[in-house]
Amino acid sequence: MAKLTVGIIGAGRIGRLHAEHLSRNAQVEIRMISDVFVSDELSAWAEGLGISRVTSDYKEIMQDQDIQAVFICSSTNTHVPFITEAAQAGKHIFCEKPISLDYRQTMEALQAVEQAGVLLQTGFNRRFDHNFKRVRELVQGGKIGQPHLIKITSRDPAPPSHDYVKVSGGLFMDMAIHDFDMARYVSGSEVVEVYAQGAVLVDPVIGELGDIDTAVISLKFANGALGVIDNSRKAVYGYDQRVEVFGSEGSVCTNNDFPNTAEISTQNGIYRDNPKFFFLERYHESYIDETAQFIASILNGEKVPVDGHDALQAEKIAFAAKTSLLEGRPVKLTEVQ
Amino acid sequence: MAKLTVGIIGAGRIGRLHAEHLSRNAQVEIRMISDVFVSDELSAWAEGLGISRVTSDYKEIMQDQDIQAVFICSSTNTHVPFITEAAQAGKHIFCEKPISLDYRQTMEALQAVEQAGVLLQTGFNRRFDHNFKRVRELVQGGKIGQPHLIKITSRDPAPPSHDYVKVSGGLFMDMAIHDFDMARYVSGSEVVEVYAQGAVLVDPVIGELGDIDTAVISLKFANGALGVIDNSRKAVYGYDQRVEVFGSEGSVCTNNDFPNTAEISTQNGIYRDNPKFFFLERYHESYIDETAQFIASILNGEKVPVDGHDALQAEKIAFAAKTSLLEGRPVKLTEVQ
Amino acid sequence: MAKLTVGIIGAGRIGRLHAEHLSRNAQVEIRMISDVFVSDELSAWAEGLGISRVTSDYKEIMQDQDIQAVFICSSTNTHVPFITEAAQAGKHIFCEKPISLDYRQTMEALQAVEQAGVLLQTGFNRRFDHNFKRVRELVQGGKIGQPHLIKITSRDPAPPSHDYVKVSGGLFMDMAIHDFDMARYVSGSEVVEVYAQGAVLVDPVIGELGDIDTAVISLKFANGALGVIDNSRKAVYGYDQRVEVFGSEGSVCTNNDFPNTAEISTQNGIYRDNPKFFFLERYHESYIDETAQFIASILNGEKVPVDGHDALQAEKIAFAAKTSLLEGRPVKLTEVQ
Amino acid sequence: MAKLTVGIIGAGRIGRLHAEHLSRNAQVEIRMISDVFVSDELSAWAEGLGISRVTSDYKEIMQDQDIQAVFICSSTNTHVPFITEAAQAGKHIFCEKPISLDYRQTMEALQAVEQAGVLLQTGFNRRFDHNFKRVRELVQGGKIGQPHLIKITSRDPAPPSHDYVKVSGGLFMDMAIHDFDMARYVSGSEVVEVYAQGAVLVDPVIGELGDIDTAVISLKFANGALGVIDNSRKAVYGYDQRVEVFGSEGSVCTNNDFPNTAEISTQNGIYRDNPKFFFLERYHESYIDETAQFIASILNGEKVPVDGHDALQAEKIAFAAKTSLLEGRPVKLTEVQ
Repeated sequence: MAKLTVGIIGAGRIGRLHAEHLSRNAQVEIRMISDVFVSDELSAWAEGLGISRVTSDYKEIMQDQDIQAVFICSSTNTHVPFITEAAQAGKHIFCEKPISLDYRQTMEALQAVEQAGVLLQTGFNRRFDHNFKRVRELVQGGKIGQPHLIKITSRDPAPPSHDYVKVSGGLFMDMAIHDFDMARYVSGSEVVEVYAQGAVLVDPVIGELGDIDTAVISLKFANGALGVIDNSRKAVYGYDQRVEVFGSEGSVCTNNDFPNTAEISTQNGIYRDNPKFFFLERYHESYIDETAQFIASILNGEKVPVDGHDALQAEKIAFAAKTSLLEGRPVKLTEVQ
Repeated sequence: MAKLTVGIIGAGRIGRLHAEHLSRNAQVEIRMISDVFVSDELSAWAEGLGISRVTSDYKEIMQDQDIQAVFICSSTNTHVPFITEAAQAGKHIFCEKPISLDYRQTMEALQAVEQAGVLLQTGFNRRFDHNFKRVRELVQGGKIGQPHLIKITSRDPAPPSHDYVKVSGGLFMDMAIHDFDMARYVSGSEVVEVYAQGAVLVDPVIGELGDIDTAVISLKFANGALGVIDNSRKAVYGYDQRVEVFGSEGSVCTNNDFPNTAEISTQNGIYRDNPKFFFLERYHESYIDETAQFIASILNGEKVPVDGHDALQAEKIAFAAKTSLLEGRPVKLTEVQ
Repeated sequence: MAKLTVGIIGAGRIGRLHAEHLSRNAQVEIRMISDVFVSDELSAWAEGLGISRVTSDYKEIMQDQDIQAVFICSSTNTHVPFITEAAQAGKHIFCEKPISLDYRQTMEALQAVEQAGVLLQTGFNRRFDHNFKRVRELVQGGKIGQPHLIKITSRDPAPPSHDYVKVSGGLFMDMAIHDFDMARYVSGSEVVEVYAQGAVLVDPVIGELGDIDTAVISLKFANGALGVIDNSRKAVYGYDQRVEVFGSEGSVCTNNDFPNTAEISTQNGIYRDNPKFFFLERYHESYIDETAQFIASILNGEKVPVDGHDALQAEKIAFAAKTSLLEGRPVKLTEVQ
Repeated sequence: MAKLTVGIIGAGRIGRLHAEHLSRNAQVEIRMISDVFVSDELSAWAEGLGISRVTSDYKEIMQDQDIQAVFICSSTNTHVPFITEAAQAGKHIFCEKPISLDYRQTMEALQAVEQAGVLLQTGFNRRFDHNFKRVRELVQGGKIGQPHLIKITSRDPAPPSHDYVKVSGGLFMDMAIHDFDMARYVSGSEVVEVYAQGAVLVDPVIGELGDIDTAVISLKFANGALGVIDNSRKAVYGYDQRVEVFGSEGSVCTNNDFPNTAEISTQNGIYRDNPKFFFLERYHESYIDETAQFIASILNGEKVPVDGHDALQAEKIAFAAKTSLLEGRPVKLTEVQ
C-alpha cells in the first residue's frame, strides 16, 4: 500500500482536527507538526497520535526531503508565504481557507504553485458534506433541469470573539466565503455579479470594529440564474446550514442535520432537539473526507477536488460583496481583477 | 337539478353537523328534524338553516310521504327500530355508527333493509378523510404490493364523561369500531382473527365502570396480512389518527393533520403546534363528503360507499375483541355468528 | 342578527369566488352582481346562489340605496374610478389588489375614500392564511425576539397567458405585490429600500413582452431587518408559498400545505404528493375569512384588517422594485412619492 | 493512561467490526484474534490493525495471562462454553447476542460469570443508538409521564440466506431479540406476557424451514403498559427501525436515519432518499460506543451498561413468543423458568 509522508503547520483547532483524521488514515504518515507555541500538552497529544516530531520552526517541515505534502493550518496571514515556500520545495499543499484576505496575493501564490507543478487543495470542506454533495449530484444529473434560483442559508450559533473579528477579514471573507464557494459548487456556474446588504443587529461592538453580523447577498450567475445568501452570526437555535436549488424541472432543498430524530408530543406542542451545534459536529465527516480525498488525489496522480482557482473565485466574490456593501451598488466580478 | 327531500332524527351534535352540511348542498331539501327535546334554541337554529319543521315526534318523519331519505342521529339504542321503520316506509337511510351494540340485532335491521330494497349508509366518515382515502387508493393501486402489516393508531385527546362511558358499549364498540372499519378499508381484506389487550391507565373510574381506556388489538386478515390497532382515551397532545400499510413493494404512512405548518426554532428546541384538536376539526371535510356521497348515491341510483355489511363486520370485530379481552385468548371471527 | 346588503362588480373567477363565500354568510344579502358580459350561464349561476339581479351596468349597483358595500372584482384599470364612485355613493368597499398600476392614482382613490368616511379593504387574502397568520402572531408575540431576516418564497405553478402578461402590470405589480404585503405583515415594519434582480428563464416571450419571470428582491426594513423575496412564474411541482422570519431569539418557518400526509416508501425512495396546486386550493379558507372579516368590520363599526394604506405601500414597493430593475441600483422608498 | 489487553474470538463480520473500533481506542491493546479459518487475507487485515497474533486456536486467548478481556464473536453455539471458559480464566467478557438459543444454558453461563466475579456485557448495540438513547432519556426523565404504550417497528431490508435461517434460532431469537431488549430499555419495565402472531409472506422457503418472516408481537409490561413489536424480514425501502413510547403526559417517536436531508420536488411529487441501508450503516456509531463503554466499565471498575440479566430476559421473551406462536395463546413470562 502506497503511503504519503506529510507535515502539518499549525496545531490549533483545525490543525489538530486534520492531524487526528490523518492519523487514522492507513496511507498517511505524519512526520512532523509545527506550531509557534510548543508545549508539553502539545507534545503529549502528538505522541498519542504517533507523530514523533513537534517543532516550533515550520522550516523543518519545508526542508524535510521526505515530506511530500504539507497542511497549512496556521493563521491566514502566513498562508501565501507558506504556500510559496512549500511549492518551491516541491511539496503538495492543503491550505485552509481563505488563502489570503487580498485576492491579488492569492493570485501570486497560485502562480508559484503552478510553476512548481504541485497540487493545491483548499479547505472548502462543505463540498464533502453528504447533504450538499447530494444537491450537487442531483443538479449535475439534471434532476431539476436548468438552475434558476440558488438559495443558501448560513448562520452561526454565536459570533466569534471581538479579537477574532478584528483579524477575520470581515463576515464576507471569513464566514460567507464558504457560501460563495457553495454557490459555485451547487450551481455549477460562476458568479458574475454581487449585491450585498449588511447590518449590525447582533452585537454593536461588531459594528464598531467595522464589520457586520447580518447579511443578505444577491447573486447573478453566468448561466443566467439568480441567487441569494443570508448570513447571521447568531442563530440561537444553533448552526443553520441549508441550501435550495430551484430549476426548470424541480427543486432540491436540504435541511440541517440533527443529533437524533426523536419528536416529543406534549400538551404544549411538538418539539425536537436543535440541529447539530456547530461546524465540528455538523461537518465532522466532511473534514475526514476532504483530507482523505486530498491524500488519494496525490497518491493516484489525480486532480484535487477543490483547487486554487476555487479559492481565488470565492475570495473575489467576497471582495465584490464588500465593495458592494461599501458603495451601495451591485458589483460585477469583472471589476475584480 | 334533481333534489332529494330528507328528514333528520336526532338534533344532537352529530345530527346538527349533518344538517348544516346538508343545508349547503343544493341538491337537498331538509323537510323536517325531530328530537325528543324541542327548545326555542333548536327552533331558531333550524330556521337559520331553512328547516321549516321541528318536531318532537320522529314518526312525523317516517310518515311524511315526501321524505325520501332519513338521517338517524339519535342514540344507539334507537338505531335498529328506526332503521326497520324507515325501511318499511321505503326511505333510504343514513345511520350513525354503530347500528347496534348487539350485532345480531344489526343483522335483523339489515334484513329489513334488504327486504325493503332501500339504501343504507353507515357513518364511517373516516373513509372520506383525505389521508386515509389516499392510503386506500395507493394500496388498491398496487403501489405497495401485497399488504403484509396494517397499523392503526387512534387516540382521543380526552376521555368522554363517565355517564357516556356507561352507555357507550365500551371502547371497542364506541371508539375502536372506526379503526376496525379502517382496517378493512385500507387493507381491502376481511379480519379473520382478533387478540385484544386492554388496560385501565388513564382513569380508574373507567375501570370501575367495566371498561378499559387503553388497548392494543392484534388482527389477522383473510389475505394473510397481520395488523395492530392501538388506542388510548387520552393523548394530551391531541387527536392522534395515523395509519400505516406495509407491503411487499413498499409502505405508506400518514401523519396527523395540523392547524398550520409553522415551525419555531428557539434556544430550547424546535416546536410546532399540536395536531387538529379532535374529530370535528380533523374530520370536518370527511363529514361533508360522506353526506354528499350518500345523497349522490341515491340520486344516481348507485351503491352507497359504506353499507350495512360494513357496519356489521365492524361490530363483529368489536364483539370478538371484547370476547378476546374477557377470555384472554385470540378469537376467530367465525366464532361470531 | 344584523345583515349587510352588498353588490358585486365583476363576475369573473374572483368575483364569483367572493359571491359563493358571501352567499353562505348568514349576515350578508347579495343584492346584485354586474358584469360587462351577461349570459344565461351567469344568470343561472347567480340564481343558484340566490342573487336575484344580474346586470351589465355597474351603475345600478352604485345607485341602489340599499346596497351598503360593494366588492370591486373587475379589471384593474376600473378600480380607481369604481372606488371613487362607490365612496361618493357612501358605500363601503372591498377592492381586489392592486388598486392601480400607478400608485399616484391609488393615492387619489384613497383620498376619495377618506373624504367619504367609508371603509376600504384590499384583497390581500394571504394575511388570512393559517400559516402566515401564525407567523405574524409569533413574531408579534415576541417569540423570535427582534426580526433580523425576512425570507419569502412565492412561486406559481405555471405562468399566466401572454395576453394576461401584457396587461398585468408586470411580475412585481401582479404577483410579487402579495409578497410585498406579506413582508410588511410578518415583519411588522415598513420596507425602506428595495433592490431587484430579474431574469427571463421560464419563457422568452415573457421577456419580449417586457416582463420577467424570475426574481430575487432584496429588502431593507425600517426596523433595521433585511429581507429577500424570490419569485418564479413556474414551479413544476406546484404552488410554493413559504415564509421565514429569523430573529434575535429564534426563527419561524412555514412549509406549504399538502392535499394529504401520506408518505410512500418504495425501493426508489420516499415520496409524498405535491403541495396544493394553486391559490384557489391553497388559499381557500383565507378567501372565506377575508370577506367574513370585511363584513364583520362594517357591522361592528371596526377598522378593516387590510386598508388602503396597505394597498398603497405594496404598490410603492412594486414601483421601487421595477425602478431598481430598470436602473440596476437599490431604490429607497422615499424616492417614491 | 490505563490500558486494557483484549483478545477477540471469531473474525467474521462482527468480530472484525469490533476489532476495527477497538484498534482506534487508545486504551486498548488487541493482543490476539482467533478464528477457525486462518488465511493470508485475515493475517494481512490483522497486521493492518496492529494485531500481532492470529491463531486458529481460541484456547491461546484463554490461556494468555495478559489478556484481561475477551470478545466472543464466534457462532452462537460456542457462546456458552466460551463464556464459561473465559470466566473461569478470570477474564471479562463481551459476548454477541444471543448468548444461547436455550435460555437455560444461558442461565448456566451466567452462573459461571457470577462465580468468577468477572464482567459480562452483551451485544445489544441498539441501546447506544442516538435515537433510542434519547427516547430512554426522555422517558426516564418523566417527559412523557407514565408509559402506556410501547411501539417498536423493526424491519430488515432483505432476508438472510436460507442457510443462515436454518441455524438462526428463528425470527424471534435472531432478529426480534433486539426489539425485546429495546422494549425493556425504553419502557424501563419488564415484559410479563407475550402474544405472538407470525406469517410467511416474504419467502415460502422460510416457512418450509420452520420459521416465519413477518410478525406482530403484543406485550404486557410489569408497570401495566401495553406494547407491540412488528417485524418483517424484507422492507424494500431499507432498514426500518423506529420506536414510539406513549404516556400519560405525551409521546416520543423516532424516525429512521437518512444518508442526507435532500428533498427533491418535481412534477411527480416530492421525494427523498431511502433510510440508511442496514445495521452497519444505521448503527455504526452505536457499535463504537458499546465497545468503548465496555472498555471504560472495566478500567473504571463500574457496572457494564448491558449485562447478562439483560441477555437472559430477552432470550426468555423470545422463548415465550415462540411458545405463543406455536400454541396460539398468550404466554406469561412466569411460565419460562
